[in-house]
This record gives sequence, C-alpha cells and structure tokens, in this order.
Amino acid sequence: MVNCPTAALVIIGQELLSGKVKDENVGYLTQQLYALGVEVKRVLFVCDDEGDIVEALRWVVDRHDHVFTTGGMGPTHDDVTVAAVAQALDRRLVHSPSLERLLETLYGLQSGPERFRLSRIPEGAELFYPEGARYPQLIVGNVFLFPGVPAIVRSKFEALADRFRGTPIFTEFLDLDRTELEILAPLTAVVETYPRVRFGSYPRYEGGKETVRLTLDATDEAHVREALELLQRLLKV
Amino acid sequence: MVNCPTAALVIIGQELLSGKVKDENVGYLTQQLYALGVEVKRVLFVCDDEGDIVEALRWVVDRHDHVFTTGGMGPTHDDVTVAAVAQALDRRLVHSPSLERLLETLYGLQSGPERFRLSRIPEGAELFYPEGARYPQLIVGNVFLFPGVPAIVRSKFEALADRFRGTPIFTEFLDLDRTELEILAPLTAVVETYPRVRFGSYPRYEGGKETVRLTLDATDEAHVREALELLQRLLKV
Repeated sequence: MVNCPTAALVIIGQELLSGKVKDENVGYLTQQLYALGVEVKRVLFVCDDEGDIVEALRWVVDRHDHVFTTGGMGPTHDDVTVAAVAQALDRRLVHSPSLERLLETLYGLQSGPERFRLSRIPEGAELFYPEGARYPQLIVGNVFLFPGVPAIVRSKFEALADRFRGTPIFTEFLDLDRTELEILAPLTAVVETYPRVRFGSYPRYEGGKETVRLTLDATDEAHVREALELLQRLLKV
Repeated sequence: MVNCPTAALVIIGQELLSGKVKDENVGYLTQQLYALGVEVKRVLFVCDDEGDIVEALRWVVDRHDHVFTTGGMGPTHDDVTVAAVAQALDRRLVHSPSLERLLETLYGLQSGPERFRLSRIPEGAELFYPEGARYPQLIVGNVFLFPGVPAIVRSKFEALADRFRGTPIFTEFLDLDRTELEILAPLTAVVETYPRVRFGSYPRYEGGKETVRLTLDATDEAHVREALELLQRLLKV
C-alpha cells in the first residue's frame, strides 16, 4: 500500500511450533496494526533458539519500519529473546541497575547469577513504562519486545499504539453468490484498471456451496469507491 | 530433537497479514506434524507477492526435510503460489494437458489465457490424487502445495500423512501451582542434567494468579521419565 509504514512479527516459542499452544497474538497484532494503517509484511515463527531468533530478526529488522517480537521474555532457560535481539542488532548486553532493583522489590529475587542475567538489556534500549505498569517493556531500536501471554500483549500494545499510527487504509468488500472462476474476467479487468487498489478474493465453502468475498483496500477512499462501482457494474450486482 | 525430520510452513495470503482472516492452518499442521514425529522449525507468513513468496521459500527449502505452503492456489490475480514455487526451485513452468482437461470437465473453463495459466505446473511436479479427490494436489520436490481453506488442508494432509512419519516424540507435562521464578533453580539443574530432553516452561495467568506448566519432550521415552522423576523430587511434588 502506498506510503504505509511496514511491520514484521517474530513469534518465538517452541510450544507454538509443536502445536502444544495455539498462537493468539498474530491475529490480534495484524488486525490492530492494519487498523492503524501499518502493513504487516511478514510473520516468522521460530523456536526458543538464540541462533534461529537472531537469523529471523536480521532478515526483517532493516526492511520494516517496526518489528514486534512475542515470547521468550521470562526467566527460564528457554527465554533467550533479549540476548538474541542484542546480537541481531549488534549491541552489547549491559547491566540495568533499575531492572535489578525491580526484580528484587517486585519478585523478591535474591542477588545471584539469575538476577544478574535477568537485569541485562541491549545497550541503548528504552525501558518503557505504560501507565500503571510495574515492570517496563523493552524497546530496542525499531524492535518492540512483548511477552507471549496474549492478555499482556494486548495491554502493552494498547499503551504503545499511538506510536505506530500511519495513513488510514479504507476497505470495502463485496460478497458474491458465485465461484471465483465465474467472476474471473470482470475481476481481472478491474484489478488492471485500479493498480493502487489492492484486491483480495476469498472463496468460502459452506454446505458444499462455494461463494466468494472480494475485498478492496487503498489509502485513497475515492479509488476504493470507484473500483467497487466498476466491479458492481461489470458483475451486474 | 535428535534424528527427527524437520519441516517449515509458508503461509501465503494478504488476508492473514491484515487480520481480515485468522489463520487456522498453523495450529493444525504443527500439531499433526509433531504427532507424526516431525519438527516444524519455522513458520513464515507472506503476502500474495511472487517475490516475497520466492524469498521465503528459498530461505527454508534446502534446510528442512519438508516444506508446506498454504494459500494462493486459486484462479484469481492474487494466486501466484505455483509460479513462485517454480521460481524458488529453479524449475520451468510447463503445460499440463491432464490439468487442462480437468479444468474443462470439472469447472467448464473454456479454452483461453486463464485456462492456459491455471494448467501450468513446475517441471517435474507430482500430481497427487488422494482417494476420492477429483482435483490433484501439487508436490514439487520437498514442497507440498496446499490451498488456504482449512477444511481442504485437513483432508489433503490426512491423505499424505504417512509420507511424513518420523520417530515418535514422547511428551510429559507437569502443572505447578508456583511461579516460574520459584522453580527456576531446580528446573535449570534438571535441564542441564538431561541435554537430550527438551524442556518447556509456560506461565499461565488466571484470576490474577500465576501458575506454570512444564513440558518434557524427547524421542527416548526413558529419558523423559527419568527427567520427570528428578524434577518432581527436586520440586518436592
């Protein structure tokens, strides 16, 4: 879409790749970002392996305006996201005295290698405190680190949403009681007439019957309306 | 996991990246493959752009035993998966007379550029007919092309499942009425004692209370049982 900021999601967690847990964050984040006028271009799921996470981040970090990670933010052996983000962005891990204090006061974590490990952050990271939050969110360059728990992703994202607001995208849709093959020629004609409108065609099967939903998206509302009118005229609906 | 065949999923469709449609295939495919003893290492969502699909495929095709694509298999302008697979695997697109006949007899598609385009397949592709299927599934090298519609993915995958059977993976789990921080030391000790067991730690929040589920996976059942016993002993449960 013309002029829209772009985003990538890096979804981290072996539990999602083995089907033990069903991801709920992709649906939420893609919908929210699109409503803000941000185009999610890629989503990558990787397991809790530092090398795999680094590789995924390096693939997306320079090519998208915003990158969101979910998962791998807890205290256990399989939580390696912070270290992976530091490595992918070529930043050192540095000690955060304020995080170390929080780990002690909030969670009673005693001094030792675990508290030390959990208080390291990539150099230059922002510690963002949403209103009412006790524990900060990490932001490193254009990478926003979210935990995996869907309820926490939602509350943290809402607190940040204004940072991502782009040009609104207008959407129209048209439900047709026909098959994709039946509408192929008129649809192709309209697609070629309106190159700045994005057309989607989604067949549905219910009770053995195929129907189709067409979607039209663009940042220019007038283009969407014109394209929809032409489509309706050619399809005689 | 030692000796397990690996897989990657390439999930194609702008509707999933804009949150218009919620993906249902990742949850199904990861669960089925894991149950068969196949490790899904990566999942990539990309939009209906031939270049983006080619890039995603090239990233995964040589590094995994099996690659599954979903989406982009219909007849409209945004269905470019077949061409992208051909390009990613450096194969020419060739004309399939048998597909062209099917397009005519099954769907009444008249001779013309659309029928010609839809009857092209990557050179050397296998046309696989599951029992009872009227239209074949495309298999190109280690890439299995599925449509996006979840019900069809399920029936087609079931017909192919036996091709992917690996060594079964044994799983145990342990639900604890504690936080991750409270179990950190014993968990870390057991993780270090059993390097061939994969341990997962998943916090849950219900009614403001944190609990945790630990999972233990390995192809060697005895290792899983021993590790679980040690964990229970150290955690005194």
